[in-house]
Amino acid sequence: MAGSEAPLLRRSSDRQSTDEDESLLTGEHTHKAEQRNWSFYRTIGLATWASLATAAVIILSVLVHNQRASTKPPSLASKRNLVMMVSDGMGPTSLSLTRSYKQYAHGTGWGDKLALDPHLIGQSRTRSTSSLVTDSAAGATAFSCGFKSYNGAIAVLPDHTACGTVLEAAKKAGYMTGLVVTTRITDATPACFASHVNMRSEEDRIAEQLAGYYPLGRVVDLIIGGGRCHFLPNATEGSCRDDGKDVIAMAREKGFNYVGDRAGFDALKQGKDVQLPLLALLADTDIPYEIDRRNEDDVYPSLKEMALTALNALSAATKDSKKGFFLMVEGSRIDHAGHANDPAAQVHEVLSYDDTFAAVVDFVKKDKTQGVVVGTSDHETGGLAVARQLHPTYPEYLWYPGVLTNVSHSAERLGQEYFAHLSSSASSPKSDLTKWVQNLVTTELGIHDASDEEIRLLVEQPDNAPYAFADMVSRRAQTGWSTHGHSAADVNIYASNAADVPALVGNHENTEVGEFLHRYLDVDVEAITRELSAAGPEWETVDAQGVKVGWLGRLPNDGERLDGQDHVDHYKGDYKKHKRCEICGL
Amino acid sequence: MAGSEAPLLRRSSDRQSTDEDESLLTGEHTHKAEQRNWSFYRTIGLATWASLATAAVIILSVLVHNQRASTKPPSLASKRNLVMMVSDGMGPTSLSLTRSYKQYAHGTGWGDKLALDPHLIGQSRTRSTSSLVTDSAAGATAFSCGFKSYNGAIAVLPDHTACGTVLEAAKKAGYMTGLVVTTRITDATPACFASHVNMRSEEDRIAEQLAGYYPLGRVVDLIIGGGRCHFLPNATEGSCRDDGKDVIAMAREKGFNYVGDRAGFDALKQGKDVQLPLLALLADTDIPYEIDRRNEDDVYPSLKEMALTALNALSAATKDSKKGFFLMVEGSRIDHAGHANDPAAQVHEVLSYDDTFAAVVDFVKKDKTQGVVVGTSDHETGGLAVARQLHPTYPEYLWYPGVLTNVSHSAERLGQEYFAHLSSSASSPKSDLTKWVQNLVTTELGIHDASDEEIRLLVEQPDNAPYAFADMVSRRAQTGWSTHGHSAADVNIYASNAADVPALVGNHENTEVGEFLHRYLDVDVEAITRELSAAGPEWETVDAQGVKVGWLGRLPNDGERLDGQDHVDHYKGDYKKHKRCEICGL
Repeated sequence: MAGSEAPLLRRSSDRQSTDEDESLLTGEHTHKAEQRNWSFYRTIGLATWASLATAAVIILSVLVHNQRASTKPPSLASKRNLVMMVSDGMGPTSLSLTRSYKQYAHGTGWGDKLALDPHLIGQSRTRSTSSLVTDSAAGATAFSCGFKSYNGAIAVLPDHTACGTVLEAAKKAGYMTGLVVTTRITDATPACFASHVNMRSEEDRIAEQLAGYYPLGRVVDLIIGGGRCHFLPNATEGSCRDDGKDVIAMAREKGFNYVGDRAGFDALKQGKDVQLPLLALLADTDIPYEIDRRNEDDVYPSLKEMALTALNALSAATKDSKKGFFLMVEGSRIDHAGHANDPAAQVHEVLSYDDTFAAVVDFVKKDKTQGVVVGTSDHETGGLAVARQLHPTYPEYLWYPGVLTNVSHSAERLGQEYFAHLSSSASSPKSDLTKWVQNLVTTELGIHDASDEEIRLLVEQPDNAPYAFADMVSRRAQTGWSTHGHSAADVNIYASNAADVPALVGNHENTEVGEFLHRYLDVDVEAITRELSAAGPEWETVDAQGVKVGWLGRLPNDGERLDGQDHVDHYKGDYKKHKRCEICGL
Repeated sequence: MAGSEAPLLRRSSDRQSTDEDESLLTGEHTHKAEQRNWSFYRTIGLATWASLATAAVIILSVLVHNQRASTKPPSLASKRNLVMMVSDGMGPTSLSLTRSYKQYAHGTGWGDKLALDPHLIGQSRTRSTSSLVTDSAAGATAFSCGFKSYNGAIAVLPDHTACGTVLEAAKKAGYMTGLVVTTRITDATPACFASHVNMRSEEDRIAEQLAGYYPLGRVVDLIIGGGRCHFLPNATEGSCRDDGKDVIAMAREKGFNYVGDRAGFDALKQGKDVQLPLLALLADTDIPYEIDRRNEDDVYPSLKEMALTALNALSAATKDSKKGFFLMVEGSRIDHAGHANDPAAQVHEVLSYDDTFAAVVDFVKKDKTQGVVVGTSDHETGGLAVARQLHPTYPEYLWYPGVLTNVSHSAERLGQEYFAHLSSSASSPKSDLTKWVQNLVTTELGIHDASDEEIRLLVEQPDNAPYAFADMVSRRAQTGWSTHGHSAADVNIYASNAADVPALVGNHENTEVGEFLHRYLDVDVEAITRELSAAGPEWETVDAQGVKVGWLGRLPNDGERLDGQDHVDHYKGDYKKHKRCEICGL
């Protein structure tokens, strides 16, 4: 028999083979060991050694593979989704306030956590280039561009050049993109992702850029939020534009499908029936606070409904794409409740954001495409403290969440009601007004112990009523506020899963959040910056005085204030006195 | 040749062997391939296979081992050290305040972080069983026992039974133990680790228990801090005891070596010359605020010096032991600066704690024994906000850290100076006092724009001066405070390394911090609880009215306030008016 034909483990002879077969059949030993030579044993020994070692190799290889798979962050597929959630103005203290409120309102114990709680991964430092206390514009520029800038800057750097954003770079790279907010879509946070202006107050210009009228053309595939007034020509009811441009019509020219009311939104069937690009503007300015909106559910959708609509639409639209989507979802009005120092409005805004965060994480985890959710705030608003000393005597250690459960509307809404009542009953006697105010305070704020002085000041200083209503609640709940503006507190960072976002675990500068977004999507933001810097004079406009203005809008004057001024008008309704509540304790 | 004697890989014949030797010598091929039979090739093939597979097994085994070593938390040796650091009253906002102050004072940019920043791993929820706003007693009971209790409880449960603490269980298990604080060692935080009373105000009783006079005997091996007054008999100068017991002498009877001043502390040579057990009481009550202490370095050591002395001593004492040590280090007076609403005192307290944290982490990492450092706060104090609106007009977004750099002393210390001056110049004319106060404000607070009204009120209401000094600084720096008490904000958790403390990454109840301490040291706290509950009547005492009192002290009366009252007297010095500053803005 030629060696090359012999099987490595062949039996040594036909006779042996026959003996073994017999043995298997009879159960008798073959008694042939003595017949075997050294070569046979050597072969068997080597073969056994080789087989055992090979089996060990296979087992160890599987172990090595499994260990790598279980301990390394999941490797990034080329297709992935990213949702950035912004809790505008929500400081760390808002969480304690809202958690205790929830536990009280639900009658649960301290084990009843917020949905956000298990997702806490760190904190963000928020200062801007112009101040230790940032505004939403500089804050969102850090998220979108990954750079610090000055308060008021909408995706422009301190030298007033535009910086490419994660959304623009994502669009360029083939991702679908979306923005969902509860405030005006032209407000600082959403604006910083898809427009560029030197001053955040240029919301008319921001509206045009969002619609696609700027050097990059249309970059947003889905817009859901408020702020319709900046899209309507100034001759139209509900417009707040300075000019006659019909930005909704302009957006349609860029291909946008426009939705302008709840019926239109409902027709989107939670995103199952959306034609992108979509421009859904569901309120003239802001969508009402959740504490008010929940009674107007037939007019305005919730943040969760808007976010899920966006997620369903973007997921479906990228089903067969090589890239996933980038979506920014903002709980915008946590900030407004902070500016208003209104703790009842705030807890409902935070709960709505909390609920939305849970739904977004759930969606992203279940989606076929790999994805991550990162949530943080741009800054703290109001200097909120969950305890307040009302008297010179040393304070008890407590606060009263029950006071907030009795409040049925935001102070802002009650102020609007009061102003409307004043307009409609200008000639009524003062005693009637006092009764009306007393009734409002009792039925809407749930306050049954209002002092005569409190009611008198509400009657005599109606322009301060929104602040005064909030203060009456804050004092009774013993929640403290140090300002109607922003503060410098570090803010929390949350993520769908800490292991997916190792770069943001711990304490980080807000620009590191932006850097993470760029890295996760693997997009080239600098290329966008170069493209924007090459924008030619065709993007210049001419202002009312006939002066040429670059596409980034007017440059601010020296010392011109760029942040926060919108809030002043905003909270005073038509009463632009810009005065602080004289009957409030701050 | 018998098969059993043949080596597995022996050469097939002597002749071949000789040929091969020749070949090796001459470089000529042996030309013997044709002589080899099938058996030879089979053997070589099997041997190669077996050898390669074995090599692969070895390589893969090393890979598996290394992967396990690099990705799993380091396995716990039976000997280990644990340092619990408590930043009493430090809320998240204190970090932003202190970081910006540090950057301003050092002239550095936003990249200049606190030592704590990279160690942030999560936050702790702090409510107690009696209130949404905890005190240090309930807070430290959560850390030491791992259970929630009522405000004022020193390691006792809501049913007024003692709960075993991590320090007691560590001592029982063979660890060395230590407590280092900058306040009275009888204050709530340290007390909760090694004593048990129903009301935190029973500091005389706590002193005796710390000295070893309670059912477990002596459990603390090293004590460094303030609070000497509770150890001195009431006839002695500097005593604050109600009785004539000499607790220092009692401690000596239990074996303690006593150190009572800076010279004695220096003789410990940073821990290199310590005889345990050590009782070092370095101030009558509190060690001065860091902002004051730094000018009295020859009288009081810093927190870092005390902590390093403790670490060196405990490390040396456990060098040859099977167990390591448990040490609690508290930055006690961050809380006091919060109660005083004194931002200048606070930033120096936080910087001192920050510096100490860095040194402790460094020590524990370098020590031969495996160890972990966990740091957190019991609660927030003051409702601190890093922004403050001073006028009805909408506020600028900023605050002024530079104001704090001009302050040379705490408001508490300046109040003491003022009171001392008043005592020594009672008959001086008012105009002299006005000049004296103006000078104090200018030179010590660095305030050159004090209004006549501010000075007048300081002169007319000296009892409010400590609060008024702090408020003058706070207003100018634009830092806000909502209370002189505590607030319900979640507080930060820090660790030497997040990977060593996975159970505390994210948002956790304060009791989970306690549970981690027990688990890390692998000690039986419940056995201690059982031992304490078995304490017999020999531990009962008789009060002044001749009524028997259990060893846990008097039971609180219904509705009796147990928390915070110590702070009221504390901050008013001898002026126990318990009134809030009328000229302060809160």
